[in-house]
Amino acid sequence: MQPLSCPFLINPELDFLNTKIRQEPFAWPVRVYYEDTDAQGLVYFANYFKFMERARTEWLRSLGVEQDALMRDDRRVFVVVDTQADFLQPARFNDELLVTVNLVNLARASFLIEQQIFRNSLDGELLCRGTTRAALLSTDTLKPVRVPASLFEGSST
Amino acid sequence: MQPLSCPFLINPELDFLNTKIRQEPFAWPVRVYYEDTDAQGLVYFANYFKFMERARTEWLRSLGVEQDALMRDDRRVFVVVDTQADFLQPARFNDELLVTVNLVNLARASFLIEQQIFRNSLDGELLCRGTTRAALLSTDTLKPVRVPASLFEGSST
Amino acid sequence: MQPLSCPFLINPELDFLNTKIRQEPFAWPVRVYYEDTDAQGLVYFANYFKFMERARTEWLRSLGVEQDALMRDDRRVFVVVDTQADFLQPARFNDELLVTVNLVNLARASFLIEQQIFRNSLDGELLCRGTTRAALLSTDTLKPVRVPASLFEGSST
Amino acid sequence: MQPLSCPFLINPELDFLNTKIRQEPFAWPVRVYYEDTDAQGLVYFANYFKFMERARTEWLRSLGVEQDALMRDDRRVFVVVDTQADFLQPARFNDELLVTVNLVNLARASFLIEQQIFRNSLDGELLCRGTTRAALLSTDTLKPVRVPASLFEGSST
Repeated sequence: MQPLSCPFLINPELDFLNTKIRQEPFAWPVRVYYEDTDAQGLVYFANYFKFMERARTEWLRSLGVEQDALMRDDRRVFVVVDTQADFLQPARFNDELLVTVNLVNLARASFLIEQQIFRNSLDGELLCRGTTRAALLSTDTLKPVRVPASLFEGSST
Repeated sequence: MQPLSCPFLINPELDFLNTKIRQEPFAWPVRVYYEDTDAQGLVYFANYFKFMERARTEWLRSLGVEQDALMRDDRRVFVVVDTQADFLQPARFNDELLVTVNLVNLARASFLIEQQIFRNSLDGELLCRGTTRAALLSTDTLKPVRVPASLFEGSST
Repeated sequence: MQPLSCPFLINPELDFLNTKIRQEPFAWPVRVYYEDTDAQGLVYFANYFKFMERARTEWLRSLGVEQDALMRDDRRVFVVVDTQADFLQPARFNDELLVTVNLVNLARASFLIEQQIFRNSLDGELLCRGTTRAALLSTDTLKPVRVPASLFEGSST
Repeated sequence: MQPLSCPFLINPELDFLNTKIRQEPFAWPVRVYYEDTDAQGLVYFANYFKFMERARTEWLRSLGVEQDALMRDDRRVFVVVDTQADFLQPARFNDELLVTVNLVNLARASFLIEQQIFRNSLDGELLCRGTTRAALLSTDTLKPVRVPASLFEGSST
């Protein structure tokens, strides 16, 4: 995973965000329903990526970023550039999971986020570990755009 | 299901289509992958609706209607107004299914389609039977618009 | 929908349940994520069936029924026999939905459940209305089995 | 991605397979339906993992391995141990994709597979590039088991 060894190019305008995030570790609960499992009796592997994206969406919301308003008003969307996951232990139907979000690098136009999925609680069994790089794109040009500091000055902060 | 007992309001401009469709029964193969199943070891019930929609998409394509061009060039989309299904026998991981499409009513702004899902072939076991009403909407107004005869005068006919 | 006109065959052993359910209307919140939407910008129609199933699962849990224990310990599973939905207004990315569960008929081996999906609250816009019949099957025989009164005497009641 | 730098531990019993696979590059077509897209108008990122798994399933089938028989008769299942993907260009509704499968390492109990997703043909635009490690597990113990040479001596070879 070479991204982690890159020089840590934090966007200086967003330094306040970095401070804020470091103080508030984020975790989001996800219940496993039949729709998430497969005929092996376990959660279908690609669905862990959905669980991680739900947690990222809620993490952005907790920072005041509503992605529907971002798309409609600012014509900006986050897209996944690359992602990776290790599946350590299987989650099962009816499990209650906890999905963490940890911003490890925030560059001009992209985020690098590390996530973990635990059973029941942060003290529970670690089931999955993943990394996702997301970029902010203009919906008009589909090109990356700078992540503005104002992005995180939404209503809930 | 009251739609079936409605007077049969065939759009007269589309009569040629009716003739054409009656002559060409349509069926589309679908393979069951892990993604389609759940922890009961069977196909997850909501996924039969996906299978039926794939077959409807391919049936439209066989009539010369490409929905991406329809959305981009004509600013028209088909949307499902209501749908219903009976699950008679379960499909399983790795099954090869055959999904039929039968237009039973074509009104000014909507279709009523009946579908069946068989295992292996049209002589195989009947697993699912469903009905779907779809309307043609303007993407600008989100209101129903008339289904034009020209819709079916696409490249493949 | 002929099921609703059937004689109301309530299983007499389950009469206490009927009373209990009538007193406690059930609703479950669902947030719309990117995974639930499609290129029309709205929730993909088949995903409303997933939302309704999540609410049914949580309704059963509220009555003390954990389906993983039911499958493991009692070798019983609920399966959907038939389902139907009317899509009245579209739900969109980031919407917060509320999904109701209303048991309208409980026979020896099956349930008939009516559900509604509202935007934001029970006073909000009604987006979808559906009906689902589910049966209790033995995992050994895949045949319907009687819904026992003891099913609802779980840990949470 | 350290797996690629591991010593190349090819299972000697499976050497014939290696030869066979090298001679037959594998690609599987996938059509993009509404179910695969999201409100950004593009294929939802996690669904590329489903497309790659469909191609792996068909690649195994082309080698004579039917995973339902493997699970039922041999009590063996393939599970994904880790996976990774780079999303280079977006796929859209109605696109016809071609998904390749390339076995790069076959150890005693696991596979390492590289895949690419192209638009239209192998000469088309490269949209996605991924790597997946899968292990063969016993369904009784959920522990890895040796990949037997006989696995690939199925009916279609």
